[in-house]
Amino acid sequence: MARKKIVTIGGGTGSFTLLNGLKKYPVDISAVVSMVDDGGSTGVLRDELGVLPPGDVRQCLVALSESSKELRNLMNYRFEKGALKGHSFGNLFISALEKIDGKFSKGIETASKILNVKGEVVPVTDQDVNLFIQLKNGKTLKGENEINHSFEIEKKGIKKIYLTPKAKANKKAIQKILKADMIVIGPGNYYCSIVPNLLVKGISEAIIKSKAKVVFNCNLVNKKGQTENFSLEDYITSLNKFIGKERIDYATFNSKKPRENLVKKYASQRQLLIKLKTNCDAEEKKKIICADLLSAEKPKYSKADYLAKKRSFIRHDSEKLAKILMNILNKKR
Amino acid sequence: MARKKIVTIGGGTGSFTLLNGLKKYPVDISAVVSMVDDGGSTGVLRDELGVLPPGDVRQCLVALSESSKELRNLMNYRFEKGALKGHSFGNLFISALEKIDGKFSKGIETASKILNVKGEVVPVTDQDVNLFIQLKNGKTLKGENEINHSFEIEKKGIKKIYLTPKAKANKKAIQKILKADMIVIGPGNYYCSIVPNLLVKGISEAIIKSKAKVVFNCNLVNKKGQTENFSLEDYITSLNKFIGKERIDYATFNSKKPRENLVKKYASQRQLLIKLKTNCDAEEKKKIICADLLSAEKPKYSKADYLAKKRSFIRHDSEKLAKILMNILNKKR
Repeated sequence: MARKKIVTIGGGTGSFTLLNGLKKYPVDISAVVSMVDDGGSTGVLRDELGVLPPGDVRQCLVALSESSKELRNLMNYRFEKGALKGHSFGNLFISALEKIDGKFSKGIETASKILNVKGEVVPVTDQDVNLFIQLKNGKTLKGENEINHSFEIEKKGIKKIYLTPKAKANKKAIQKILKADMIVIGPGNYYCSIVPNLLVKGISEAIIKSKAKVVFNCNLVNKKGQTENFSLEDYITSLNKFIGKERIDYATFNSKKPRENLVKKYASQRQLLIKLKTNCDAEEKKKIICADLLSAEKPKYSKADYLAKKRSFIRHDSEKLAKILMNILNKKR
Repeated sequence: MARKKIVTIGGGTGSFTLLNGLKKYPVDISAVVSMVDDGGSTGVLRDELGVLPPGDVRQCLVALSESSKELRNLMNYRFEKGALKGHSFGNLFISALEKIDGKFSKGIETASKILNVKGEVVPVTDQDVNLFIQLKNGKTLKGENEINHSFEIEKKGIKKIYLTPKAKANKKAIQKILKADMIVIGPGNYYCSIVPNLLVKGISEAIIKSKAKVVFNCNLVNKKGQTENFSLEDYITSLNKFIGKERIDYATFNSKKPRENLVKKYASQRQLLIKLKTNCDAEEKKKIICADLLSAEKPKYSKADYLAKKRSFIRHDSEKLAKILMNILNKKR
């Protein structure tokens, strides 16, 4: 029997967590990845070398890599001094391969081979694009990094969120979505990692056309000043609007409460736990799968696993999340 | 039957060429590598990250790597723009691993695993050392890079060539030399890649003690202002002096003349073909193996093989050189 096909849509640490869990199952995984990052190491490489953003792709490649722990650690290593300070080794790796191969997508193929990647990492577009948000007060936020650090988005209201130039989807991303048995959106930074994928011409159309079950993995905490007051239902409503049809079939929602002092600490930084409008048992919520999806609070990581150190303490458990998703995949409609 | 053990002593492009040929034979190869490079990408990394010099080690690792062509090309790729300009990707790779593993030698072990290296690459010392030359006119040349670019060494004469601090040999380098069946010195930059190995305390002593045949691979052209007037015999005399005993058993010497216009071009840059004091047929020269060791003049290289582009046109052929060395290895004394 052919393996079932899962397409994930996202970017960054959210995709890393998700893919790390999913790769343990006998499924065919394609990770469609956002291409708007312009901050940190990735931003510097875009500016200085004229490459496409490697950061999100890197996290997905590492998550799906079946090579040695040493090689995976190396990819997440960040230089700490000199002109290289802040650069992720894996970003340099992807950018060098893009330069050698002459094309980003070809570079990713080579990287996948070297890293022994299970499945495929597909940039949502091959174009060099940037994310913009025009607020209702007339101000325009330029670039993913500026948007990520703005905390007035929710208060001022979004008039328009768009990519410049208008990006067309990578053909492979569309093919993968059309043939998928399940499309998994999130978890991840809503406006910076999830929505930018849906702004790429062809992606929403393919999601609508696809016969796949569409699942939204709701984050655990909201983002200050951006989705600070969102409920799970608000996310679903918003996503369906971006897609252009009520296409979200299922959503996963963490029902396990983190330790009280952690919740307070997060809340003091205006990062509130996401809530349901009704409760988990309500009949109309049968498509909302409530479960303990919470990771152990103290993440274990090796000395070199710099990525893990930056991960938050209230976060998804890869294995719990993947298990719930496999249940949804195998569920009869 | 146990594989025969070959130890090469050198660094840089010379070792790259030599090891590329030797690795095709069923022998146990250890590449002892000079650690004084302080120019270019390597120099910047030493200064900014406080790492040991990765450049020579990288070339040896790549030469002995049995991994994909893509991975080997990547290791020799140099960034062309921005703050990364001039950095060899492979140097960043080795320096990142040194930082992650906490020790240069441990980093090389990990690199060897990732690159699927046949044999072993052994830094001649684990200490952070620099090369100095005191000239007879009192001037001191500081560091490998300054020495490499000085063309008054031969004219002024060397009073003293030394390392600071006084370096002790890596124990593994000594062990490998003591157990070797053949020790192969060169080809390579004489004062910058070959001699610095012999200045490390313990190396010459081990060469003297070892029962190995000791072979010197003579370069094809002399270096302007440094060894500009050396004959093969002068190199042997000089090497024996550095070792402290007449320990060079054999020398290989290229007898095939390159194209006349190439020879002229080199000569116009004061890079003269190295000569024998007598001719190849003379009886006393039976330990000097004269043969066609010349590479095809137009090197083939892939787009990404930046190392090859920098290689000179009058250069050794890896396969011809390795074949001659295997003959020497299997020769009865």
